Amino acid sequence: MKLNGTMQVNTAGHLEIGGCDTVELAREFGTPLYVLDEACFRQNCRDYYRFFTHKYGAEVVYAGKALLNLAVCRMVDEEGLGLDVVSGGELYTALKAGFPAEKIYFHGNNKSPAELGMALRAGIGIIVVDNMCELELLDGIACDLGIKADIILRLTPGVEAHTHEYIKTGQVDSKFGLVIENGQALAGVKKTLEKSGITLRGFHCHIGSQIFELSPYFDAAEIMMSFIQLVYEKTGYLAKTLNLGGGLGVYYVKGDKPRQIQEYAEVVMSAVLRKVKEYGIPAPKVVVEPGRSISGPAGSTLYTVGAVKEIPGIRKYIAVDGGMGDNPRPALYQSRYEACLANKANQMAGETVSIAGKCCESGDMLIWDAELPVAAPGDILAVSCTGAYNYSMSMNYNRLPRPAMALAGGGRAELINRRESYGDLIKNDIIPGRLAFKSDSK
Amino acid sequence: MKLNGTMQVNTAGHLEIGGCDTVELAREFGTPLYVLDEACFRQNCRDYYRFFTHKYGAEVVYAGKALLNLAVCRMVDEEGLGLDVVSGGELYTALKAGFPAEKIYFHGNNKSPAELGMALRAGIGIIVVDNMCELELLDGIACDLGIKADIILRLTPGVEAHTHEYIKTGQVDSKFGLVIENGQALAGVKKTLEKSGITLRGFHCHIGSQIFELSPYFDAAEIMMSFIQLVYEKTGYLAKTLNLGGGLGVYYVKGDKPRQIQEYAEVVMSAVLRKVKEYGIPAPKVVVEPGRSISGPAGSTLYTVGAVKEIPGIRKYIAVDGGMGDNPRPALYQSRYEACLANKANQMAGETVSIAGKCCESGDMLIWDAELPVAAPGDILAVSCTGAYNYSMSMNYNRLPRPAMALAGGGRAELINRRESYGDLIKNDIIPGRLAFKSDSK
Repeated sequence: MKLNGTMQVNTAGHLEIGGCDTVELAREFGTPLYVLDEACFRQNCRDYYRFFTHKYGAEVVYAGKALLNLAVCRMVDEEGLGLDVVSGGELYTALKAGFPAEKIYFHGNNKSPAELGMALRAGIGIIVVDNMCELELLDGIACDLGIKADIILRLTPGVEAHTHEYIKTGQVDSKFGLVIENGQALAGVKKTLEKSGITLRGFHCHIGSQIFELSPYFDAAEIMMSFIQLVYEKTGYLAKTLNLGGGLGVYYVKGDKPRQIQEYAEVVMSAVLRKVKEYGIPAPKVVVEPGRSISGPAGSTLYTVGAVKEIPGIRKYIAVDGGMGDNPRPALYQSRYEACLANKANQMAGETVSIAGKCCESGDMLIWDAELPVAAPGDILAVSCTGAYNYSMSMNYNRLPRPAMALAGGGRAELINRRESYGDLIKNDIIPGRLAFKSDSK
Repeated sequence: MKLNGTMQVNTAGHLEIGGCDTVELAREFGTPLYVLDEACFRQNCRDYYRFFTHKYGAEVVYAGKALLNLAVCRMVDEEGLGLDVVSGGELYTALKAGFPAEKIYFHGNNKSPAELGMALRAGIGIIVVDNMCELELLDGIACDLGIKADIILRLTPGVEAHTHEYIKTGQVDSKFGLVIENGQALAGVKKTLEKSGITLRGFHCHIGSQIFELSPYFDAAEIMMSFIQLVYEKTGYLAKTLNLGGGLGVYYVKGDKPRQIQEYAEVVMSAVLRKVKEYGIPAPKVVVEPGRSISGPAGSTLYTVGAVKEIPGIRKYIAVDGGMGDNPRPALYQSRYEACLANKANQMAGETVSIAGKCCESGDMLIWDAELPVAAPGDILAVSCTGAYNYSMSMNYNRLPRPAMALAGGGRAELINRRESYGDLIKNDIIPGRLAFKSDSK
């Protein structure tokens, strides 16, 4: 397992995160346990701030859907980043954490009237309008409130990146955004400029997720700049903001070759600045929205090994006390992860095992064919790079309570998410009166 | 959309479930809303009871992982079925609902010591032991408590059914159970019979999920009966219980041809009784564990249509206010569903649209290419057969609150799950003191 952030093996031979012995963390907080490496999370924020904001004046907006809770909001704010929310629930969380409303971008392909009203009343920075239905809806709500909503329009630039390749047509068929190449986007801009309840600040695009190649970013930035110039020529409107979304890939398993944040910044900004020069227009404020590349490598999950089962000549299974409930990504996306035995972190791999989750579902397999020291019940298994789309996608399938999350840094760890209790599982269950007593119908 | 259970179109042209106008339900309880058709749920229970219990004395055990809450537990109990739970959380729910402990089967490939202790102390009927690690663990706990645990052993019979085909080898490589064909199962039985804290009641197998063919059930029943006979010959131990699991398929979309519960019962019981006769042994008590085929067709989900977006010549999207958060199955399993517009249920299909969920994720598509009347924002979309593995797999991705569930029957509807609030989303979030105030580090 690659050691991320502050991970190291201590003198006891245990995996340490943020100066905390993970075997102790498992004992103190129980398992499964999400551990967030505070220094790693903050360093990723700072790298973005340094290479985008400090160097180019660009705005970095953390994509909360990767991992969001009150404490994460506080750290993002402390590090000077903005926040991208995608629902009333994320917005509520941000506001409860005291996140500055004006630094919030509100995304989503189908925001409800209630969510839009909530966002406007909270005075959030920018609503990223996805489609014409939403434009009409928002205009109406803003007019009713007697305010103007600052928006950017989400566009599909015709570039969709998938890790090692990208195509320039398919993603026109997307539930998100207005298509540039068929003229929908330009028509949308003209319509937007007519709205009395709306102030258009610029444009947004997002080309995909977990991307290792930088050329699609370059191309998307150029296409978006060309669109800005087109709009300027056709309407006289000059966009002030160019939001290029997120999607930078991270290391999960051997063979993954993520690009550095600095490279990413240089590629994106060079494309924008080249076009600025070519068109002789003022540079828009560039915005990027990293999520996974900030929180992903900062997260790990600790499990306790339970049943060990060998099928001779076929496979050895080791089962842990979590699985698809706390990390649905292997089941959803066939995602791969690395792991180690936290209490045997200085031992050589001695066998190949497959790590099964606890759910009553054949598909609940965390890792196939992991190389580990010989595992026994009670060992602590650490899975790395679980900081993105694990807690945020967690579920109570099989009525398993969702894990706690500890923030580890400087040798101490504090809970930032309490473990769910059995009581939490039934808190919203109601038995209608007529069902409360046993009927004798049979 | 095929009309399940009590579904019908009323004189207003609206979809009715349990005598309730679903458009009214959406208005009263909000959307997304799970609606459970009480009569349909109970009828499915009664069909199982009739064709298995009444006719053959077999035991029917509802598999709670498909759909479980307090009210569902009550109905299952009222209908005379047992309950299969797969975690401490499901067991807790059942006990809180007053479900008779002795009618509970406890499944799972990695039960924790705490869960096993909880089950023993509650006096539940049968623990389905998955592997030798668990056997040792359970024996220790039972001995400590000074009791004997009633168990059955989970075996892999070498039959794995996948809808239209099945194979007889692959599933030996499974995280579940002891393999019959390599001798692990027999060795496991001998070990079990030596344990002072354990009483072996019989055997269990489960050959898969959403199965349309009945021959794999026949084969599995025969293989398990042969194993019972083998064990009898080798050890003198005669199994009293034969639990054949669940997995009967249901109708989701056109082309699905589910088998009737009665046929299923005849096939399973004929295989068992044939072997009973052949071996001249007493018939074991047969147990079946249906989940999806009881709750699936009884559930529907109501959504409100929001943004409608047409990409000329390519596709028309209609977005609803839920999606992969309340129904992860399309994203997880590429599952297909049927839908109708509940408020236009008497109108002919006028267009082909794709139904997008609300999550900020390209994969959040509920249905591709649905034939519907022309949809407009505010229409109520009903998706059928969502009673299994929807609520139970629901998540808060994008911090979307999970829907409410209404039980509809006899013209009235009552909440059996309260809708999650924004407050629920942050109820377990904690901000450590040092993060509570804005630092000025930047």
